[in-house]
This record gives sequence, structure tokens and C-alpha cells, in this order.
Amino acid sequence: MKIPPVKGTRDFYPPDMARRNWIIDGWKKVSVRNGFEEYDGPIFEYLKMFQIKSGDEIVEQLFSLKDRGGRDLAIRPEITPTLARMVNQQINSLPRPIKWFSVPRLCRAERPQRGRFREFFQWNIDIIGVDDVLADAEVIFVACDYLQEAGLTPDDIVVKISSREMLAELLLSIGIAESELEPLYAVLDKRSKLPSDAFEEMLAGQVGDKNKRNKIIELMAVESLEQISDCLQLSEKAKESVEELKRLFELLEIMGVADFCVFDIGIVRGLAYYTGIVFEIYDKATELRAIGGGGRYDDLLKQFGGPAIAATGFGIGDCVLGILLEEKGLLDEQLSSPGPDYFVAFTDKQFFSKAIEIAAKLRRAGVSANFDYKSANLSKQLKQASAQNVKKCIIIGEELKENKLAVKDMTTGKQELVDYDKFLAQCAE
Amino acid sequence: MKIPPVKGTRDFYPPDMARRNWIIDGWKKVSVRNGFEEYDGPIFEYLKMFQIKSGDEIVEQLFSLKDRGGRDLAIRPEITPTLARMVNQQINSLPRPIKWFSVPRLCRAERPQRGRFREFFQWNIDIIGVDDVLADAEVIFVACDYLQEAGLTPDDIVVKISSREMLAELLLSIGIAESELEPLYAVLDKRSKLPSDAFEEMLAGQVGDKNKRNKIIELMAVESLEQISDCLQLSEKAKESVEELKRLFELLEIMGVADFCVFDIGIVRGLAYYTGIVFEIYDKATELRAIGGGGRYDDLLKQFGGPAIAATGFGIGDCVLGILLEEKGLLDEQLSSPGPDYFVAFTDKQFFSKAIEIAAKLRRAGVSANFDYKSANLSKQLKQASAQNVKKCIIIGEELKENKLAVKDMTTGKQELVDYDKFLAQCAE
Repeated sequence: MKIPPVKGTRDFYPPDMARRNWIIDGWKKVSVRNGFEEYDGPIFEYLKMFQIKSGDEIVEQLFSLKDRGGRDLAIRPEITPTLARMVNQQINSLPRPIKWFSVPRLCRAERPQRGRFREFFQWNIDIIGVDDVLADAEVIFVACDYLQEAGLTPDDIVVKISSREMLAELLLSIGIAESELEPLYAVLDKRSKLPSDAFEEMLAGQVGDKNKRNKIIELMAVESLEQISDCLQLSEKAKESVEELKRLFELLEIMGVADFCVFDIGIVRGLAYYTGIVFEIYDKATELRAIGGGGRYDDLLKQFGGPAIAATGFGIGDCVLGILLEEKGLLDEQLSSPGPDYFVAFTDKQFFSKAIEIAAKLRRAGVSANFDYKSANLSKQLKQASAQNVKKCIIIGEELKENKLAVKDMTTGKQELVDYDKFLAQCAE
Repeated sequence: MKIPPVKGTRDFYPPDMARRNWIIDGWKKVSVRNGFEEYDGPIFEYLKMFQIKSGDEIVEQLFSLKDRGGRDLAIRPEITPTLARMVNQQINSLPRPIKWFSVPRLCRAERPQRGRFREFFQWNIDIIGVDDVLADAEVIFVACDYLQEAGLTPDDIVVKISSREMLAELLLSIGIAESELEPLYAVLDKRSKLPSDAFEEMLAGQVGDKNKRNKIIELMAVESLEQISDCLQLSEKAKESVEELKRLFELLEIMGVADFCVFDIGIVRGLAYYTGIVFEIYDKATELRAIGGGGRYDDLLKQFGGPAIAATGFGIGDCVLGILLEEKGLLDEQLSSPGPDYFVAFTDKQFFSKAIEIAAKLRRAGVSANFDYKSANLSKQLKQASAQNVKKCIIIGEELKENKLAVKDMTTGKQELVDYDKFLAQCAE
């Protein structure tokens, strides 16, 4: 009877765990150096929490459960509702700007496919309390900072950036009604994922007027910010949005990550709650799903019962990123199992206790050390050590009577006698 | 509308998260230096997985849910079933001994009380494939190694140790039938948690014969291993168990942690699955629930459909441990929010871009840095820096034209001019 893990979930054996840790440790390190503090919430929340932001459609993508009082709960499919809840709870005491990050474990009952599991980890960065586009630039910088840190270059990835506010203004100027915007975003978000005739058919389902449809198709074919300023009649608000995007690109240039970034009017983000700059990160070949994405969401805290506070952030999951890092050879190279620093062996059973004592002392001193459980002969112990990929072996034998230990370098095979007390003192440093 | 977290769960604001990270990072560090490798499984498993080890009673303590195919799942209340599943799946390829650790997030639908939440983190250490008591000693050493590392001493905590095998032999010699042992363990496990008359009443419900009951009460009052050897008629198997316990204490002495450890026949562990050495860790004053516990469970892998392989391990949760560390003043001392290394300020808006550029460069070099989003005047920027507990401020002003930066130490107030390029090169080192 072999019991499998639940469909769409992953077992993390030590080599898988090393890769997961390497990705997550990188996220944490880059978050901290960019001035973000870590937070987390519970793995489940009241079900209604997730409906606030994403509507009732989200329910079928949730793993839902009940508490002992029969209340409806769900395993979190994202952390943003928890963030909004937590910030609102302490809104009067938290100094602003709030720069927080988290690496939640999330679950979604979606169909598993390449780069998509039912359980995954997602890096979240948010700046709350800054309405200036500088915060959006910083958030994009943080993403690029990590991707560079992981070894990726502008040859590998691209951050595609647009503005939801600008798109709204342009669509309004085409004659789309305010109330039609939200469902239209969901359609436009599908554009790059569908063949053009399928997209146009979907668009026709949303926008009845052929003239307007053509204008939308024309608009979505725009390739640069300049083209927008040059070719279209812009409202004041649209002009401001274009200027904001231009300033964003200037800031990304100053921050040294402009090489990663392009304007792409096709970046819409399906969710209703974005209000300004939006972006998505892709592998350059666009062979994979989005690595991550984010943007400005100035209305969300209010929806969760708090005040209206500006906010911007992103989420990057571990699945697609992991595939890309593996494809580029960046994961395996850096993660060959290091093995313990020392293996404490002995030539004769009379030295067994001393071996255990020394191993314990090494560990207490912060040095990793193993020993053999079977009191086998020396050659078997050394074989164990090799199998464990140990760096050095300490061999305890007759020399102990003169207060000496043999230390064997397992890479070079070189062996030397060292003073017992000096050796331990050195390790404790 | 303030939305609370679900009852029994915790929000981790940055100061709480720092404490949680400090505890978990300590667990991980100590695990690695003791030669353990990290693993993890999914947050939920098939419900039946948890019934294999703990029977049907466990079901009401679980948060259970269904997948889209209607299969019964549950959020894991412990990781041992997952460990057994994972090890069995790769039993033929995993080199032994298997020394694994994990820090799972677990959920149990129990009544929340002091030191008990419905969601918590638990450090698990297991050695699989070693039947020698040396592995039990090592496991206990690892627990002590961490507790010492965290700043606790034998004045603060005690590891109470016994043997389930020895207890079984002694109870059999009193005349308890093999089939009565399992329910009796559950009663004996309650002994230290109940007033003596309540315990004796509970015992009477399990053991009808008054004579046997008195012998059990006498047995449970034994205070040392010597007393057992001296006073009781021991079967061969009981003698072996006593010898094994004696060897365990010798090994703990050699390892340098004997000061933490005592023999306590009252340590029974409620669960059916222990087969040998068992232990529990308590605060010395015994004012709190157990900090952790563990023991040998040689039959478990077989129960999960694998071969019979020796195994021993422990679990230590974050809740009771956190209370103890806090009470001893060990948590807060070490965790005052460090704040970023640098805040990059400027004397005049003309230097704003340079400030952003330098902050980005510092971050890329691995140094944490913040800046002001509002381009406020210098004194407001310095105030921001102070509020963020920043160590040093870089002030960019006219001196930049001579390629110089002012660096202000926020603790001493001392300010000095440094060479721009040299400074950046230094940071990048």
C-alpha cells in the first residue's frame, strides 16, 4: 500500500526542499534589503473574506471547510485579503508607509497543469500609504532585484507594464460606458492568451458596436507610450496617466532596472481591484505562464472596512519561477547537497565514547557533525562519511593519548594530526 | 467593520513574525548542525491517513475538507503520517539512516487555551533505520542542543524520560493482560495531570482488581532506575529495558546534556504507537503544558504499508516554548527591530534622483536601504529615518559635485564626508 499525496500537491524530499528554501530565502533576503518587514496570517480565514475582493466566482476555486461552530472557512488562495484585514485592524497605530512582505503557503482548487499546483508558495510585497508612482517603481525594482539575484538577466525575463487608469480613460474616450469596463478588462486580459479570431469573438460578446470594437483592437495594438500621446485625443486624466507611466520608466532607469521593463498596453490584469499601474513578469520566450504580477490597488483597504489608503504590490509564485530557474540551470548548480562539515570516526571501540563526545561538542559549537551508529570498523565508517558527502573526517585513535586527533580532508584525502584542545577551541570560535 | 482572524488562529504582525522566525531559524540551524535534512509535505492529506495512526477519535480534532472529486481530506494535525508516507514511497532509494527534520504548520480543532492554538508550528526530528538507543540519545541531545542555544538552562527545563517497553513488561509482571495495556497507557498518561484521588478513580475504571491497582500505584511512585532493579522481580525483557535506559543516560552524560535529563516512570505518552524510549520536555516549575515530547516508534512505517523499520523522533511546538522563552526574557531581548542599515536622504530636490539611484545600488549590493517617498525637507527625512530605527543616514547635497557623500551615524549623531565611489565599492564587498 503506497499512499500518494493529494492530487495537485507536492512532497518536498530533501533535494526539493533545498530548492524551495533557496528560492524562498532569496525572496526574504531581497525583501529585507529593500526595507520590507515580514508578516503572516493564518492558513484559513472566514470564507466571506475571499468573496469581498474576488466575488462569488472565487468560491469554487477554494478549499473550504467549517470550524466546530459550523462557520464557513476557506484555506487562503491569496494573502491580500489577510493583509487588508490586518492593516485595517491596526490602522491607527501602524507607522506609514507600511512596507510589508510575506511568503504564504496558498491553496487553489484549480486544475493542475504545468507551473500550476493546488498548493504553492507566493512572495508578496506591498507598500501601503504612498500614492506616488515612486512606490510602484520601487515594487517593480524589488522584483527585478530578486530576479537578478537569482541569476536571471534581461535576456531571460521581461516586466510588461501598463496603467489600468490610462486604459480606462482610453476606453471611455472610445465610448465604452463606465459600467462596461470591468467585464471588458477580463476579456482584454485574455488577449495575449488566445488566437486573434478567438479573442475578437470574445470581444464581440462583450462589445456589440463593431466600430468601438475596431477602435479597441487598434488601441490594443499600440506599441509605445509615444504612440498614445501622438495618435489619440487624450482627456486630461488620460494625459496624467501617460505622464505617470513616463515617470515610472524614468524612475526604473534611475534605479538601474530599465533593461528588464517594457510598456505593454496588453497588460490588463483580470481582477477588478487594480486602480493604476499594473505589470506582469514573463520569461522572455513567453513559453511559460506569468511568473508574477501586481499593481496599484488604492481602493482595497476601504472594501475591507478600512479607510481609503493608497497601496501597491506584487505576487510571485514558486512554480513557474522554479521551472524557469531550472531551465536556465540556476537551481541545480547552486544546490548540490553540502553534507555535514565533519564525520567523527574512531579506530577502535574503546574510542567510541570519545567520538560521541566530540561530535556533541562540535555541534554545540555550531559545526555540523555526524557519526556512525553501528560502531563499525574504520573503513566502513569512512565509507558512511563519503556517502554523506562529508567535508572532513576526524579519526580518533591511539594518538588521543597524546591529546591528538587525525583530521582527514575527504576531498584531497590528505590527513594531518592536530592538537585536540586547539581543534575544539578553533571550532568554537 | 473590523474582521477578526478565525478563533484559535494568530495574526503575525512584524514583531510577532520576528519572534516566530527567531524560534524557527533556531530549530533549523540546530537540525542542520546535528546532521538532519529538511523535508515537508502538503498542508492537507487524505483524511484516512490520519486515522491509520490515531484511530477514528482523531477525526473530530481535524479540520476536514473535500477536494473537487469529493474525496475526504484534512489539514494535517501532525507531520508523522506524512513522514511515514514519504519514506515508504522511496524506501528502496533513500540511504539509511534517514535523518530528517521538518517545521510544519499544523491545525487541530481543539479548544484554544494557554499554550494551545488551533494553528501552530511544530519542529519534528526523526531518525529512521537505527534501532540502537544511541539514536534515542541523539534525538534527546538535539532537543537539549536547541534549548541551550535559545538560552535555556537545566534550571529552566527538564527532559523526563522513561521506556514504554519497560513499563509494558512491568505491568505484565503485575498481571495486566497484553490487551489491557493500550487503554491503561491513556490512564497512566493522565496521572501527573490529575489529583491523586481522581487518578485512582480513573484507574479503578480500567483495572478492577484492587491488588493490581495498588501494585500499579506503587510502581508509578518509583523514583529511580535503581529502585526498579532492586525492588522488583524483573523478566529478562524488563531487565533489558532497564539496561537500555541506563545506557541512554550514560550516552546523555557523554554528550554533555545529562543535567537536563531525569528518569520519570510517569512519562507514558498517550498515543498507542510508541514502542521503546519515551520522553517529554517541561518547564522546571511545571507551570506550563509539555514543551514537546517524543520517543521510539518502530512499528509505524509498517502500519503505513512499508517494511518494519526502527524509528525515533520528537515534536516541539512553538506555543508553549514561546511562552517560556518570553517569561525568561529570552525572546524580546534578542529581537528589537533592527531597522535598515541606511536611509538615503537629500538636502534639495535636485539630488532626489541621485538618492534613489544610490539606494538602489546599496540594495543591489546586499545592504538594506530606505528613502523618503515625499521628497520632504531634510529634517523631515531624518525624522523618518529615526522612526524607522535606521543605523546610518546618507545625506546627498552640494558635496556630491566633489564626489562626496555625508554619512551620519544615527546612534552617535556623528557625521563624516566620504568618497562616493569608495563608499559604494565598500558596500559591494
